[in-house]
Amino acid sequence: MQRYKCSMMYDGTNYNGYQKQPDANTIQSEVERVLTVMHKGVSISITSSGRTDSGVHAINQVFHFDSNLKISSEGWVKALNAQLPKDIRITSCVEVESSFHARYDVKEKTYQYKIYNSKHEDVFLRNYSLYFPYELDIDKMQSAADVLKGTHDFTAFCSARSEVEDKVRTISGISIIKTCNEIQFNFTGNGFLYNMVRILVGTLLEVGQGKLSTTDVENILKSRDRRNAPKTAPAHGLYLYDVKY
Amino acid sequence: MQRYKCSMMYDGTNYNGYQKQPDANTIQSEVERVLTVMHKGVSISITSSGRTDSGVHAINQVFHFDSNLKISSEGWVKALNAQLPKDIRITSCVEVESSFHARYDVKEKTYQYKIYNSKHEDVFLRNYSLYFPYELDIDKMQSAADVLKGTHDFTAFCSARSEVEDKVRTISGISIIKTCNEIQFNFTGNGFLYNMVRILVGTLLEVGQGKLSTTDVENILKSRDRRNAPKTAPAHGLYLYDVKY
Repeated sequence: MQRYKCSMMYDGTNYNGYQKQPDANTIQSEVERVLTVMHKGVSISITSSGRTDSGVHAINQVFHFDSNLKISSEGWVKALNAQLPKDIRITSCVEVESSFHARYDVKEKTYQYKIYNSKHEDVFLRNYSLYFPYELDIDKMQSAADVLKGTHDFTAFCSARSEVEDKVRTISGISIIKTCNEIQFNFTGNGFLYNMVRILVGTLLEVGQGKLSTTDVENILKSRDRRNAPKTAPAHGLYLYDVKY
Repeated sequence: MQRYKCSMMYDGTNYNGYQKQPDANTIQSEVERVLTVMHKGVSISITSSGRTDSGVHAINQVFHFDSNLKISSEGWVKALNAQLPKDIRITSCVEVESSFHARYDVKEKTYQYKIYNSKHEDVFLRNYSLYFPYELDIDKMQSAADVLKGTHDFTAFCSARSEVEDKVRTISGISIIKTCNEIQFNFTGNGFLYNMVRILVGTLLEVGQGKLSTTDVENILKSRDRRNAPKTAPAHGLYLYDVKY
């Protein structure tokens, strides 16, 4: 048996999220379906760095699987892509030690959230960027983002449906970049709670509009109460951008 | 009765082209369906600057229609967009003289064709750019494009299925711009034949790979025979970019 570590890119628009579910079209089921065909019907499971929600995209999602097939890195990429739908692409597949684990070994993840900040909608971005026609103050958003950096209990910015007990996470960086009509939020950290990036974006958008101050954001964080934070930003602006091991 | 001139943007991915057809999902049928609802069931027809094929997009398609409703420019845009699917957006709607005709009055059209020129596919561009992994010589393509400029009989670059008799057209400009992994071809002219832009792109791609020379392109043009020109480039890289009156 050989363990393989793969990277993939996907457009989450047409999927019910990453994770396998009965009777649902998911990223995981597509990849496992193709691997199972390649293994002549022997069912193969993959383990990813973590799930992504319905409509969320990935520039670089990582997963591992075990196989007794001897295929080169390039061979795996070609064979998998030949059978996968066009909105899922394997970008690399390399041999790793059998001790490697795509979820437990994650050191850092980066998520990107894209805003299309313009008076007019762009049909080509409707599934790939949050259309937001109101003015946003980038400096104010960056100042509020800075107080979120570091190690905190992020309960206030985590979906109430989360079943994780320990809600302490470390955000090492939040950058907000505006180019023409696009605003990119980049969040890097050792881990993110359920809906955390989307609630943080929802909060920063209120700051950018002058509805909340940096002090308000500090108080929301300290409150550890999800009801104090603004609403979750939509899924379709979010990208799992990178996973580091 | 008042005539209105509207501009719209659409993502052609999920449509069977612009033109109304029985039992097909088209851009024209969507817009007419919404207009008919707004006119309480009185059927309203629109006339565009010309059709676009299945999978072809528009940044600025223009159409006109007549109505006895008194609605402001902004009112039309809002009302139409509220009922149109998200992949069709009206960007403007203004009152014009009843003599204005969206097809007959066209002075100039610009089409854009996008190539994603990279070793690796990008899932987010799969419907919006032709994925082309081979090296392309931009200077050679521009030189060949220059011989296509001017007034010529473009029979060699027109689908054999075209029923138009006069195949003389004037191309006033062809620019080819490379930025990072994207190559944009911009074609401006007084009119384009059926599949003409896509056959021109197919031809220029052969030039860019060194398979055809500028002289070959001149000879194909002179031959007035479609069988001499390379194959039609796929629809999904093509955009109706602008229409001038």
